[in-house]
Amino acid sequence: MDHSNGEHIIHKVGAPSSKQNLMKEFRTTVKETFFSDDPLRQFKNQTRSRKFFLGLQAIFPILAWGRTYNLSKFKGDLIAGLTIASLCIPQDIGYAKLAGLDPQYGLYSSFVPPLIYAFMGSSRDIAIGPVAVVSLLLGTLLQAEIDPAENPTEYCNLAFTATFFAGITQFTLGFLRLGFLVDFLSHAAVVGFMGGAAITIALQQLKGLLGIKNFTKNSDLISVMKSVFGSVHHGWNWQTVLLGVSFLAFLLIAKFIGKRNQKWFWVPAIGPLISVVLATFLVYITRADKDGVQIVKYIRKGINPPSVKHIYFTGKYLTTGIRIGVVAGLVALTEAMAIGRTFAAMKDYQLDGNKEMVALGTMNIMGSFTSCYVTTGSFSRSAVNYMAGCRTAVSNIVMSIVVLLTLLVITPLFKYTPNAILASIIISAVVGLVDYKAVILIWKIDKFDFCACMGAFFGVVFAGVEIGLLIAISISFGKILLHVTRPRTAVLGKLPGSTVYRNIEQYPDASKVPGILIVRVDSAIYFSNSNYIKDRILRWLADEEEQLTAQGLPQIQHLIVEMSPVIDIDTSGIHAFEDLYKSLQKRDIQLMLANPGTAVIDKLHASKLDDVIGHDKIFLTMADAVRCCNPNSTIDEV
Amino acid sequence: MDHSNGEHIIHKVGAPSSKQNLMKEFRTTVKETFFSDDPLRQFKNQTRSRKFFLGLQAIFPILAWGRTYNLSKFKGDLIAGLTIASLCIPQDIGYAKLAGLDPQYGLYSSFVPPLIYAFMGSSRDIAIGPVAVVSLLLGTLLQAEIDPAENPTEYCNLAFTATFFAGITQFTLGFLRLGFLVDFLSHAAVVGFMGGAAITIALQQLKGLLGIKNFTKNSDLISVMKSVFGSVHHGWNWQTVLLGVSFLAFLLIAKFIGKRNQKWFWVPAIGPLISVVLATFLVYITRADKDGVQIVKYIRKGINPPSVKHIYFTGKYLTTGIRIGVVAGLVALTEAMAIGRTFAAMKDYQLDGNKEMVALGTMNIMGSFTSCYVTTGSFSRSAVNYMAGCRTAVSNIVMSIVVLLTLLVITPLFKYTPNAILASIIISAVVGLVDYKAVILIWKIDKFDFCACMGAFFGVVFAGVEIGLLIAISISFGKILLHVTRPRTAVLGKLPGSTVYRNIEQYPDASKVPGILIVRVDSAIYFSNSNYIKDRILRWLADEEEQLTAQGLPQIQHLIVEMSPVIDIDTSGIHAFEDLYKSLQKRDIQLMLANPGTAVIDKLHASKLDDVIGHDKIFLTMADAVRCCNPNSTIDEV
Repeated sequence: MDHSNGEHIIHKVGAPSSKQNLMKEFRTTVKETFFSDDPLRQFKNQTRSRKFFLGLQAIFPILAWGRTYNLSKFKGDLIAGLTIASLCIPQDIGYAKLAGLDPQYGLYSSFVPPLIYAFMGSSRDIAIGPVAVVSLLLGTLLQAEIDPAENPTEYCNLAFTATFFAGITQFTLGFLRLGFLVDFLSHAAVVGFMGGAAITIALQQLKGLLGIKNFTKNSDLISVMKSVFGSVHHGWNWQTVLLGVSFLAFLLIAKFIGKRNQKWFWVPAIGPLISVVLATFLVYITRADKDGVQIVKYIRKGINPPSVKHIYFTGKYLTTGIRIGVVAGLVALTEAMAIGRTFAAMKDYQLDGNKEMVALGTMNIMGSFTSCYVTTGSFSRSAVNYMAGCRTAVSNIVMSIVVLLTLLVITPLFKYTPNAILASIIISAVVGLVDYKAVILIWKIDKFDFCACMGAFFGVVFAGVEIGLLIAISISFGKILLHVTRPRTAVLGKLPGSTVYRNIEQYPDASKVPGILIVRVDSAIYFSNSNYIKDRILRWLADEEEQLTAQGLPQIQHLIVEMSPVIDIDTSGIHAFEDLYKSLQKRDIQLMLANPGTAVIDKLHASKLDDVIGHDKIFLTMADAVRCCNPNSTIDEV
Repeated sequence: MDHSNGEHIIHKVGAPSSKQNLMKEFRTTVKETFFSDDPLRQFKNQTRSRKFFLGLQAIFPILAWGRTYNLSKFKGDLIAGLTIASLCIPQDIGYAKLAGLDPQYGLYSSFVPPLIYAFMGSSRDIAIGPVAVVSLLLGTLLQAEIDPAENPTEYCNLAFTATFFAGITQFTLGFLRLGFLVDFLSHAAVVGFMGGAAITIALQQLKGLLGIKNFTKNSDLISVMKSVFGSVHHGWNWQTVLLGVSFLAFLLIAKFIGKRNQKWFWVPAIGPLISVVLATFLVYITRADKDGVQIVKYIRKGINPPSVKHIYFTGKYLTTGIRIGVVAGLVALTEAMAIGRTFAAMKDYQLDGNKEMVALGTMNIMGSFTSCYVTTGSFSRSAVNYMAGCRTAVSNIVMSIVVLLTLLVITPLFKYTPNAILASIIISAVVGLVDYKAVILIWKIDKFDFCACMGAFFGVVFAGVEIGLLIAISISFGKILLHVTRPRTAVLGKLPGSTVYRNIEQYPDASKVPGILIVRVDSAIYFSNSNYIKDRILRWLADEEEQLTAQGLPQIQHLIVEMSPVIDIDTSGIHAFEDLYKSLQKRDIQLMLANPGTAVIDKLHASKLDDVIGHDKIFLTMADAVRCCNPNSTIDEV
């Protein structure tokens, strides 16, 4: 390959490694797949006891950050903790209803899981507890199996079972370092899914807000709208509507104020609690519940009862519980990871995805033992936590203690809280999930992503939350597969006065070299695309020859494939190149390769295809390859 | 971006297209996905009647090649047709037994489908009929639903139903131009699956070959071995073993002779028919069937009876039929496409995958109406067809006519054919499916492919044919997903005396440029890998800085990302780059991009990320980018 006919120093193409080290290759793959964040780096060159302590610290990050914890940090965490507690208490009661559970379960879920997370989690800003989307999803899936009105105990037990398996799913993914699987749900699909779920949740709240008694159990737009308008004349309760709508207006104004001026972030944060106190007091003194204003009625006092023995570890509900748990666990994980990463990027600290999953999993497993349902990081409360100046996960501990006191002391006071207020709190919380700015950005950047986003959105809104989720996942996978099967190819031309070859569509002043067709393949060549790539190269050739014939120009003699982007090739790819070579031979066209990478060179060599094509037809750069085709024309080359 | 401080003519990076043409982009994607073979090219600029004729020709390729058909071609086709007929008749009877059907159904399936294929198919070499692997798969799947011994009629009807839906599946995939889906089964997985299926089939033939009466219905190695050795003392019939083993030896020797000298390809081709004739005659004169040699006993005379009204279009077997049909149809499709492509490459003609699927689908639909079961292209018979000198699909018509005559006249003569002969014919036919040479090549080229191959092989052998198929598909998808989630990245160095930057691991003499880290990302950046890529780049940086600190060298000031292989980026990718930029800003490191493609430039622009990074930090070539970092050092650059 050493051409000395040029005036340049010609480098050889990196030779195939003399010995394919299988074990090394395998180790690299395993490392990049499962340990790409190099978690063992800090363990290098440490004493045994130090290693043990580091290991313990890895499981309980509180041991690391706890040692530098101080009063100034605590001040921030205290304020943030109190703020998110005031926000979470009314939300919890509402979300529990969304999941089809009694209100106290929402509070239970804001007590144990945040405590556990504080010890094991590595995010400093996330606020743990029940969230709207997961509550809705869990409620929908559970109600498809058991009617909570008929069998409240079984329903509750299935909820704990699902929570347990959601935790197991999360823990297992983290422990097996399969955290990257969460990345398979594309950002665009998540935005669409969340937006659709928010709309669905808001619509379902019309039941509470308008005081409608007979309401559909389906979550799609059409069923809900039928329920709403079907009951206009006899089902709406004017006192409820008045109460609900005025407090909703108050909450939305509070939200608007908080958005306009970040200093006033606490206005929307304490708005819900103020609404609850005011509305409860109002109902209590006017006894509006006797006029048909629906109220919470009963909420159990005391801390979480144990629920280990309520979980279905056998029987017909086991598989159902596993199925629902896996789905709810994955959705909860997606939400938590998105939040964790967002805030980690804002404060520039690293988040270990797998460790985070272990923490979330443990927290849900322990939760399922203590009457909690699936919890995760909440978008709205985490944002408030961040703005209120939280410094560490201690804010979650503060919130947890406040919820504990609430459970022990003041739950009975929620008896007269009108459902309409809970509905308006939920609506004002979920409107933030409709991230229209992200949608506009997605539209601008990538139209295909936009379709994915809209697909998931309309799927959730019109066909229900499970179908929407399925659409989101299918679209994400479809996109991956499409790009893998139909990679791009480009014809390259030479930029005038240089030896740089670029896509002639991107650079109109690049000119084709007479007698040579240069094609760049923009992807690794695998079984899924090898046939397409071969056919596409032959089609470029056919198009070019047709054009040349029409113009009466000489035909193509050399076809150079620019391999820089071809980072890998498999057996099918090698076969495709063999076929390509044979087809070209029959037409008297010489196949040449430019700049194949290590993996490709190794495999060309292993398959002896490099002998067939000819070692002198494989070049380090496009310039070398073109020079070899026209050994005399060194004009116009720098 | 126009630097005039160098002595080179500097080209600008291809600007973002002023107007993103959504419709054009969409059209291109649709075209490349579904019409990548440009099927409408020939219709351009034609009169309406010509277009109609061309359309008709596209559906029935026989109209195209039939017009140039002549006597010399017919001679080749006649000989090839007679040869494959002599091979297919005994195979058909055996394969029908493999599918759990009566022997005549095998012959039926070699009469109608090849005729239809001859009119619609575009491969010139493929031989259509029942094949071993599909027969086994169909038999296994059907017997899991219905016991053919108890309900022979229902079993048969379900077989037709499955055949109908196999045809519908194939037709639909072709008609909707989804043919590329077949490419998702990787070559390596197919080799492993076929090999495993061949071993399984051969093992099952021990029943016939050894004359065992009580034989397992499972297809896995362990069950079969138990049946074989469990009946050593009382279940083997010595006359059967003698007959079977001696004819098997004859057939294998014939095969060996055919392989040694291609001129004698007809020896293994007519071997089976000679064996059948000899063995049948032998049993007839010795009446060995009275000594326990099992014989065919009854085979119905006459052509295919209609079976339209036996297909389950409603009822409980409808969904089962659809499920089995889809699986069998896809496997049949994979086999036919592999054969078609192999021979098309050998004779250098184009095969339209989608059109081919429509032909195969139609042939199976029509087959299901005329008492045929799923047919496809046979590896062994197609090879014989090719070697016997077939020129067009007329050889299939010849074979079909011979089978017709057989059905009309001589089927009763098969009464005394011993099952042992059919078993030895099947064994000698399937040994060719164990493609150990391909396995060795796969091992040499790609270790991961080898694992996929072995996974499918052992899956089929030890866990049964459906599980093996599932493993093959899972491994194929797993491989795609792995490569999409964990793309490679490389640190680049400068080759001495050039402006060429290459992977320092592949080119050890490439040297890093002081103060600059150059990372190449070898993949499109999508949601599935954007987080990994960002983290991996930061890890390269951390490794490099650790090393520099240890050596007391100055730290990195510029990080250049070589974007040549990054052919596309989506919203998540843009977010990852934003995060990367922020992280680097905090460390006072300048992010630079070299040679982004059209799609990437467009999206950087749409997201305004190019303004954030700085237009003067995006370069056409690595050389330009490095020159910009060290404006004074033009030393060592050509």
